[in-house]
Amino acid sequence: MTMELALSVNGRAHALIEMFVAAKAEHKIEVSRGARGETLIDAGSHAQGSISAGLALADICMGGLGKVQLTSSSATPRWPWTLIVYSSNPVVACLASQYAGWRLSYGEGRDAFFALGSGPARALARVEPLFETLDYRDSAKSAALVLESLRAPPPEIVDQVLKACVIAPERLTILYAPTQSLAGSTQIVARVLEVALHKAHELKFPLGRIVEGVAAAPLAPPHPDPITAMGRTNDAIIYAGRVHLMVLGAAADARALAEQLPSAGSRDYGRPFAEIFKQFKGDFYAIDPMLFSPGQVTVTALETGESFHTGQINLKLLDASFA
Amino acid sequence: MTMELALSVNGRAHALIEMFVAAKAEHKIEVSRGARGETLIDAGSHAQGSISAGLALADICMGGLGKVQLTSSSATPRWPWTLIVYSSNPVVACLASQYAGWRLSYGEGRDAFFALGSGPARALARVEPLFETLDYRDSAKSAALVLESLRAPPPEIVDQVLKACVIAPERLTILYAPTQSLAGSTQIVARVLEVALHKAHELKFPLGRIVEGVAAAPLAPPHPDPITAMGRTNDAIIYAGRVHLMVLGAAADARALAEQLPSAGSRDYGRPFAEIFKQFKGDFYAIDPMLFSPGQVTVTALETGESFHTGQINLKLLDASFA
Amino acid sequence: MTMELALSVNGRAHALIEMFVAAKAEHKIEVSRGARGETLIDAGSHAQGSISAGLALADICMGGLGKVQLTSSSATPRWPWTLIVYSSNPVVACLASQYAGWRLSYGEGRDAFFALGSGPARALARVEPLFETLDYRDSAKSAALVLESLRAPPPEIVDQVLKACVIAPERLTILYAPTQSLAGSTQIVARVLEVALHKAHELKFPLGRIVEGVAAAPLAPPHPDPITAMGRTNDAIIYAGRVHLMVLGAAADARALAEQLPSAGSRDYGRPFAEIFKQFKGDFYAIDPMLFSPGQVTVTALETGESFHTGQINLKLLDASFA
Repeated sequence: MTMELALSVNGRAHALIEMFVAAKAEHKIEVSRGARGETLIDAGSHAQGSISAGLALADICMGGLGKVQLTSSSATPRWPWTLIVYSSNPVVACLASQYAGWRLSYGEGRDAFFALGSGPARALARVEPLFETLDYRDSAKSAALVLESLRAPPPEIVDQVLKACVIAPERLTILYAPTQSLAGSTQIVARVLEVALHKAHELKFPLGRIVEGVAAAPLAPPHPDPITAMGRTNDAIIYAGRVHLMVLGAAADARALAEQLPSAGSRDYGRPFAEIFKQFKGDFYAIDPMLFSPGQVTVTALETGESFHTGQINLKLLDASFA
Repeated sequence: MTMELALSVNGRAHALIEMFVAAKAEHKIEVSRGARGETLIDAGSHAQGSISAGLALADICMGGLGKVQLTSSSATPRWPWTLIVYSSNPVVACLASQYAGWRLSYGEGRDAFFALGSGPARALARVEPLFETLDYRDSAKSAALVLESLRAPPPEIVDQVLKACVIAPERLTILYAPTQSLAGSTQIVARVLEVALHKAHELKFPLGRIVEGVAAAPLAPPHPDPITAMGRTNDAIIYAGRVHLMVLGAAADARALAEQLPSAGSRDYGRPFAEIFKQFKGDFYAIDPMLFSPGQVTVTALETGESFHTGQINLKLLDASFA
Repeated sequence: MTMELALSVNGRAHALIEMFVAAKAEHKIEVSRGARGETLIDAGSHAQGSISAGLALADICMGGLGKVQLTSSSATPRWPWTLIVYSSNPVVACLASQYAGWRLSYGEGRDAFFALGSGPARALARVEPLFETLDYRDSAKSAALVLESLRAPPPEIVDQVLKACVIAPERLTILYAPTQSLAGSTQIVARVLEVALHKAHELKFPLGRIVEGVAAAPLAPPHPDPITAMGRTNDAIIYAGRVHLMVLGAAADARALAEQLPSAGSRDYGRPFAEIFKQFKGDFYAIDPMLFSPGQVTVTALETGESFHTGQINLKLLDASFA
């Protein structure tokens, strides 16, 4: 991946956040100041939030380097409302920015806070091992962090973030919404391209070779139970997500990527995600990481012009999950 | 519904109108001053108008609180060009603004003028009974009124509007296009979400509980005969419209709404609208109001996460109407 | 066609180019100055370019008078990523601007340069016979020329363009990308509406009667071989393109246009384009010009409201081409 100094995911997110805040009534979000002076945006906790807020969160998560649109698709006739996501900078947009990979935890017992941080701030902090394989580094003076969380983080977490990002508190924006909210559900389904990119990384496909990504997944109806809600957003991707990657390098590598990428190759494929999660007693790390991927895949090898099609949409499991 | 003072449908429409006027050649519209000093925008009468003008009218009708896109859909393969409409503020966008509910009439006989006013100005005037159940009130200093009409209203109608809205004439914009024009046909099909909201209201579903709406309907080919043109735009919604509402409150209420919402439950379902209209000798009030609704419906109860699917698309009747 | 002085395709393209250049890192394009002082934008030659750059090129080619969107379509399930193109000014956008009709050549032998110029500059130069039937003439002080080319044109070609457009070198922007690049492939498939317009012209349908156009075609996977790449972009349109034109004038004329417009009526229909091209030994002019058209057509006669449907999508040939 070429180092693209001009592509500041936090700088772009900053502009998107200004528009988001200006339209806060429309998006049904609440904006406040935290204890350290950071900006807090509640997009689905006390605030009702909205699908439009979820679309804005998705744009912010990708640092403005992807496009997310709500449209309809006949590929999933019973659940036609579909998010299309594409990026001509998929590795930066999805892995250096959008991926929920920054483990943030503080305290113990009832008051313990744990969340996986996602969004542009990760590319300033660069504390995750994933960044060892990403030569992207942001140098913006502001940071945007997105949390799939029911509440704002405690001041100690904010301190961790400020320190890792080396920015002033008033230049940090933390946006949060739980999975079971409209905005949460929307922004998680919008990760359909990111999930494909992350699995490609797990499969050790050289990330710098992935030059384009287009993906789609049906909007998941929110559910008040966090595990069922999480199950639906995952199932939208695993059983009804579609992705097309365009890659450099040997066609044989593109073919191998296509063969391994679809979720159907996973040991745990075949049941709604919430069931799988419960079977493993909520232990994410016991679930086969190969499950996290879109159901239907095309990989085009730009070197030869060949395209490799694998996987399929599983309407039965989608219905079982969303019903 | 929470009172959202910051959401001024007329203020937002004003900004949209400025862009519309700046692009008047592109949209093939004509802009002039009326006798009272109001701005008149002819989007399909003497002016040819366009589909793009119809999309702009739709945005203006919703006071900028909805998104309307022209896309394609395989749900109606013979008529694939489809409008997708969504709003995270569907009650304000569709009922307080877009709904054509303001009866404006003046004079008698040949020179009589009658039109149903729609758009943001209604939320300033608030003269319709519908506003008794809407706690939204705009307080903008400008107003935008949309008329499905072949001609601009006479000065006496303009006076009625100015008085009801309590604004200066130079701050009023009246936009008009007949049903049989490209812009008229487009902006009426874009009412697919509004029609669902209005039927929910007729069914006495508490409007404050409807928090999200997404809908789609195929673009109707215009017809030079006003009744046939009106028939086609109605049929696009009644026989091929789809809507998904997300609602608060008991799941039983969501289920009941879904069961009653689709057009197929109406006594008059089953023939092209123009035929029904002629059967009742053009008396709108003799037609079953339950007919006015999208054909296919999903209602999601956010309280339980359940979704209720009812109705279907009727390709045969769509073809009979559009052919 | 009414003369629309306010619609300057070069003026609009200038604004689009400023945004394109400002986002050059995101689009992976390279911007430089040529020998005469013109701006050169490499969107897929030394620069990698991108699908997003191709979408921008398409907008620039249409002089900002059309909309191009990347979405998905179930009409071509194996190749769902689809470009939708529409314009309420299709003749100006597509024929006076987008059509690749300006033959530019210089030199001989190895160093010879030949390219077909497309985009807004054509409407300043007006050197093609096609302009005899187009009463559109731009009078902007800047020009944008798009070339389907692996390299920037030599200074002598730039001189030809400057002279024909009567503009200063620093006001000329030349954008280029070869067919086999991501941007090239994207912007060529986005010609699906233009191809329909051009065939209508070949069929002697009066252009001034075509008032609206909507079209779609699947994104073609690029191929490193120029002929195969060209074949795929043509096949995307010929075998899987869809268009809907709305026209003035007698319904019989609309019907006749619909009957003649689809590609299936051509002598050369039925094989991937690259094969046809090779059969005729690369002589474009030996190929039946009637082949260049979308596969599926609807023409609506606004005078009577009738729509005429002809042709179909040919999934087998699409697969044969893209596979």
